[in-house]
Amino acid sequence: MQLFYSPNIQNNTIRIEDEEFHHLKVLRKAVGSELAVTDGKGNLFSARITEIAKHHCLAEIENTTHVEPPTHQLHVVVAPTKNIDRIEWLVEKLTEIGVAKISFIQCTHSERKVLKTERLNKIALSAMKQSLQFYLPQLNELQTFDDFIKATPQNTNLFMGYCETENTQHLLSQPFTYQNSVILIGPEGDFSPAEVQAAQKAGFEAISLGANRLRTETAAMVAATLINAKFEVNP
Amino acid sequence: MQLFYSPNIQNNTIRIEDEEFHHLKVLRKAVGSELAVTDGKGNLFSARITEIAKHHCLAEIENTTHVEPPTHQLHVVVAPTKNIDRIEWLVEKLTEIGVAKISFIQCTHSERKVLKTERLNKIALSAMKQSLQFYLPQLNELQTFDDFIKATPQNTNLFMGYCETENTQHLLSQPFTYQNSVILIGPEGDFSPAEVQAAQKAGFEAISLGANRLRTETAAMVAATLINAKFEVNP
Repeated sequence: MQLFYSPNIQNNTIRIEDEEFHHLKVLRKAVGSELAVTDGKGNLFSARITEIAKHHCLAEIENTTHVEPPTHQLHVVVAPTKNIDRIEWLVEKLTEIGVAKISFIQCTHSERKVLKTERLNKIALSAMKQSLQFYLPQLNELQTFDDFIKATPQNTNLFMGYCETENTQHLLSQPFTYQNSVILIGPEGDFSPAEVQAAQKAGFEAISLGANRLRTETAAMVAATLINAKFEVNP
Repeated sequence: MQLFYSPNIQNNTIRIEDEEFHHLKVLRKAVGSELAVTDGKGNLFSARITEIAKHHCLAEIENTTHVEPPTHQLHVVVAPTKNIDRIEWLVEKLTEIGVAKISFIQCTHSERKVLKTERLNKIALSAMKQSLQFYLPQLNELQTFDDFIKATPQNTNLFMGYCETENTQHLLSQPFTYQNSVILIGPEGDFSPAEVQAAQKAGFEAISLGANRLRTETAAMVAATLINAKFEVNP
């Protein structure tokens, strides 16, 4: 199945533009062609093209299927790496394996102070379509560690990947009490002792991801893979 | 710790050349400087530079530590993607999380028929040092699916990632009978029915990696992460 994306839906009409429109033209879709379209919010539309203009097309919805979101929602919170390619890669992979939300935090030891999420959103969109999902992960703008910690959610499994302590238990040995989880992954220079203390005070449990020293983006991907699998196997 | 690599060790002398030598010069190491060096075969040498020439340096071993390999050995067998960047990324990530061997197979639906492993070896080397490991994964040249299947090892957990069957169990629900595992990951167009049959005949169990359709390199990374974690938590 070739999946298209459009957030522009009014009444029974889907408007497709920009890259999605370009893609549709490359595939030589014409008036009358059937399309599978998602709004990234759990809806899958079966629609038929009614009009092709220069920069957009319109399609009429013939059938709508609402796909329930996964019962487990994972929020990955990561300090972006200096190298932007690694973050772009991470957003693609986290979207493929299926996370609900990705946030970026600026820590004491962060090397990157600015992050543009526009391109990252495009990457997430493409990965969502590629992996045939109907929910686009929410990408939050870069915020400070302190601001993030202030808004720590309740009734959520709270984990923090942390390298320095020797006695941390493996993520998979942790109790998963709630249906939703947050995993916090620090920058290359790790969290500062003050940040570790603040996170622990806010209820985050320091966990281990195994014996090896992992890069930031690898740690985030490994943690998300393990948490997702935990819920897939024992939902 | 800054780790160097050299496979050239004779008696008590380590010879460092090429990129490792360049790296050492960038770090302004001089005669008398102490170095941590691994041979990628489980040895960590503490050595002191005795001579710096134009294209190499020599260091004398002062202390040797042998690090035991992980009791669990994972062999990832993957059909390389059309896009070489994705394979390079995969080799880096598999090395970071710690696999013993990576093999490349050419399947009926493979789009890539040629693969040079020289650059991939350099990437594995860099990832090994980055993640402070002392074993370099073995990278095997591209071989046909048939040749690979003929040499299926005994007394090994054999898994095959396969998208098409609906009733496959999740990888983490499988029994892990042996200490060593092989995971087989197909090309973008998936294994052919004949390949699936041949693999099953050779003892490979078709497994699921979750609900989403994953790209080849994502599937390989997810599978390796889960198998490694299984042994880290219950060794």
